[in-house]
Amino acid sequence: MNRSADEALRARALKVIPNGMYGHESTRLLPALYPQFFSKAEGAYIWDADGNRYLDFMCAYGPSLLGYRDERVEAAARAQTALGDTLTGPSPLLVDLAETLVEMVDHADWAIFCKNGTDATTMAMSVARAQTGRKVVLLAAGAYHGAAPWCTPIPAGVVPEDRAHLRYYTYNDVESLEKAVTEAGDDLAAIFASPFKHDAFIDQELPDPAYARRARELCDAAGAKLIVDEVRAGFRLARGSSWTSLGVQPDLSAWGKCFANGHPISALLGNDSCRDGAGQIYATGSFWLSAVPMAAAIETLRIIRETDYLEHTVHLGNRWREGLDAAAARHGYALRQSGPVQMPQILFAEDPDFRTGYAWGEEMLKRGVYVHPWHNMFLCAAMTDADIDFALEAAEAAFAALKARQPSLEPHPVLVAMFGAH
Amino acid sequence: MNRSADEALRARALKVIPNGMYGHESTRLLPALYPQFFSKAEGAYIWDADGNRYLDFMCAYGPSLLGYRDERVEAAARAQTALGDTLTGPSPLLVDLAETLVEMVDHADWAIFCKNGTDATTMAMSVARAQTGRKVVLLAAGAYHGAAPWCTPIPAGVVPEDRAHLRYYTYNDVESLEKAVTEAGDDLAAIFASPFKHDAFIDQELPDPAYARRARELCDAAGAKLIVDEVRAGFRLARGSSWTSLGVQPDLSAWGKCFANGHPISALLGNDSCRDGAGQIYATGSFWLSAVPMAAAIETLRIIRETDYLEHTVHLGNRWREGLDAAAARHGYALRQSGPVQMPQILFAEDPDFRTGYAWGEEMLKRGVYVHPWHNMFLCAAMTDADIDFALEAAEAAFAALKARQPSLEPHPVLVAMFGAH
Repeated sequence: MNRSADEALRARALKVIPNGMYGHESTRLLPALYPQFFSKAEGAYIWDADGNRYLDFMCAYGPSLLGYRDERVEAAARAQTALGDTLTGPSPLLVDLAETLVEMVDHADWAIFCKNGTDATTMAMSVARAQTGRKVVLLAAGAYHGAAPWCTPIPAGVVPEDRAHLRYYTYNDVESLEKAVTEAGDDLAAIFASPFKHDAFIDQELPDPAYARRARELCDAAGAKLIVDEVRAGFRLARGSSWTSLGVQPDLSAWGKCFANGHPISALLGNDSCRDGAGQIYATGSFWLSAVPMAAAIETLRIIRETDYLEHTVHLGNRWREGLDAAAARHGYALRQSGPVQMPQILFAEDPDFRTGYAWGEEMLKRGVYVHPWHNMFLCAAMTDADIDFALEAAEAAFAALKARQPSLEPHPVLVAMFGAH
Repeated sequence: MNRSADEALRARALKVIPNGMYGHESTRLLPALYPQFFSKAEGAYIWDADGNRYLDFMCAYGPSLLGYRDERVEAAARAQTALGDTLTGPSPLLVDLAETLVEMVDHADWAIFCKNGTDATTMAMSVARAQTGRKVVLLAAGAYHGAAPWCTPIPAGVVPEDRAHLRYYTYNDVESLEKAVTEAGDDLAAIFASPFKHDAFIDQELPDPAYARRARELCDAAGAKLIVDEVRAGFRLARGSSWTSLGVQPDLSAWGKCFANGHPISALLGNDSCRDGAGQIYATGSFWLSAVPMAAAIETLRIIRETDYLEHTVHLGNRWREGLDAAAARHGYALRQSGPVQMPQILFAEDPDFRTGYAWGEEMLKRGVYVHPWHNMFLCAAMTDADIDFALEAAEAAFAALKARQPSLEPHPVLVAMFGAH
């Protein structure tokens, strides 16, 4: 594998970007072989700066739902680009898009559009507080809701007061949720929940329906607001609210990543019980009303409604999960595959310091498949059965290569520093 | 003026968007005649949803620096769109863009890119705190630094702790700044400053060089960081840091709005004294590394370096300011024009409840010129001398029409509610 362009870029980046890269797409916590820079993408594939091609199971960490550069979405974006993007006011598409989402998402009576997922989760918190006149917000411990001072998982540069009224419960644990609600007393503004537990580095958990229903009941009893953070999972589990299948409707939901298939837009949706609070807060951004991402979103949402994108990714995800388990077993490995098949987390059993998962990731990468050793992955609708065949062939060879390397594997030094020695 | 499409859109929006619109582009605080929705833009002009055309002195509240849909920038964006936008990692353009800004902005040794101006100002605060290990941040009272809980100008939905370690001083007032620094004691992390005072509803103030230099000295003496918030004014006063002309270099600067001519990207720039702190914080977003806005930024910055865009807007701004003063005087009005001519604030003398300014705005709008009655405006490089001639002709007629309406003017009811009766 040629790596020279990536290495040259990393050397330049180190001079003009802190640590050479920042945020969730930094490769600092990935195996050394993983490329940092990508030059091109099409459908289910990405090309790194050296021209190596990969079947991409990260999908830009979520935004690519239909595949990169989906021509239907890009045509809609181009048509709007010819009219205008960031203007002195919103385009009529803003109303079309809000109506579309209100129609598609059961609980939603209104929408506010923004740019980052963090914008939407932060507004959800503010709307709940404005609406209820209360302060305490409950979060599942370890859940990711963005990177603002109140929620960033690495609290360098934040002050303790940024989390003054936040309290934590254990996801799927009704008792811990009830305890946190009791402790909040009459100051409970909101409960945050992810559609399923998709924390990094650990097994994923589907939501226990009893937990979801109890969260709703507790909010109703307390006059608090239930917030579902759909930023990562939205439209990957359902064509509307992810908890509709559980019979639970939130008051507020935060959306981002994929509903414009990679164009930058996120949204806060809410029901009428929060409309006054939403009308009180002031939140805005220079590019929040840009029209091109709205055109892309409207077309993406049409495709979501009218095609089998979801069933297709579930079909492929099942093949991928079953095929991987079988291939692993043939080479003496056991996998911990968790979460929805279309958003899989793939960890190795008996791999506490991730050394096996990291090495397997490298072997997959060498064979043209980009998998992640500790973050949930994403399938996109542009993937085909032939792509899964290709990925499973790569996996077969990667497990064999892994077996040969196993005795000499070492844990990744940054992980050791993070989690301590084993 | 036909308004039927805008009215129909407003009625629909009221159902699916809180208050029918949110944020700085809501027309709730503008004269009733102002359209909410815009369908098209080209160069210096925007068209509302009813097809009425306006010479746009708002430039999307800043993002349009060169004019809407500048073909040079759009060609660069299109070329990158054909390769990819939001991928699983950054494109090599990230490094090119960081190098470009480090080259152009004197104090900058590194860059972090994001989406909202608020992302950049919030990171600036976090980096200063991470770097210094201190908490107190000083802000000029009334200055706008974004819409997150720590800085939103309308604090509905925020809690007092969101501003726990923020202290306020008076812009351009050395004594008040020194007092605030003294009170911060050994816990001073940073001083925020705008390049000039561009608060809404009041006259703008250019920076007193003594204030800027004293802010630098106080930071140096205290080991704190000086942060200049260039989001609104960046690249409209200079081809680099706005305070270079005062001989003052900040440690950190936040940029947004116009450096990709309307494509969504913002940036935090910093010097080496803050590199460690910047490397410690975790801040990220799904679309922060998207490549198309970076391609647009690189081309916009090339145009900034290689053309007379700045001198051109200063020339037009001087003509606009002088011509307006003369026209106003001919009709018995006196204007309070403040700030840089290319970012003018235009208020009326003896107009405490803005009734005169609002009516003049309406008369300008009727004549095809979009001005703002209380927010600073922006000129763009696509404007021509002929456009200024057109705007001044409109102004002449608007002052005459205003004179006729003057006895019957009433203040805007929302402003009365905000500021109290007069």
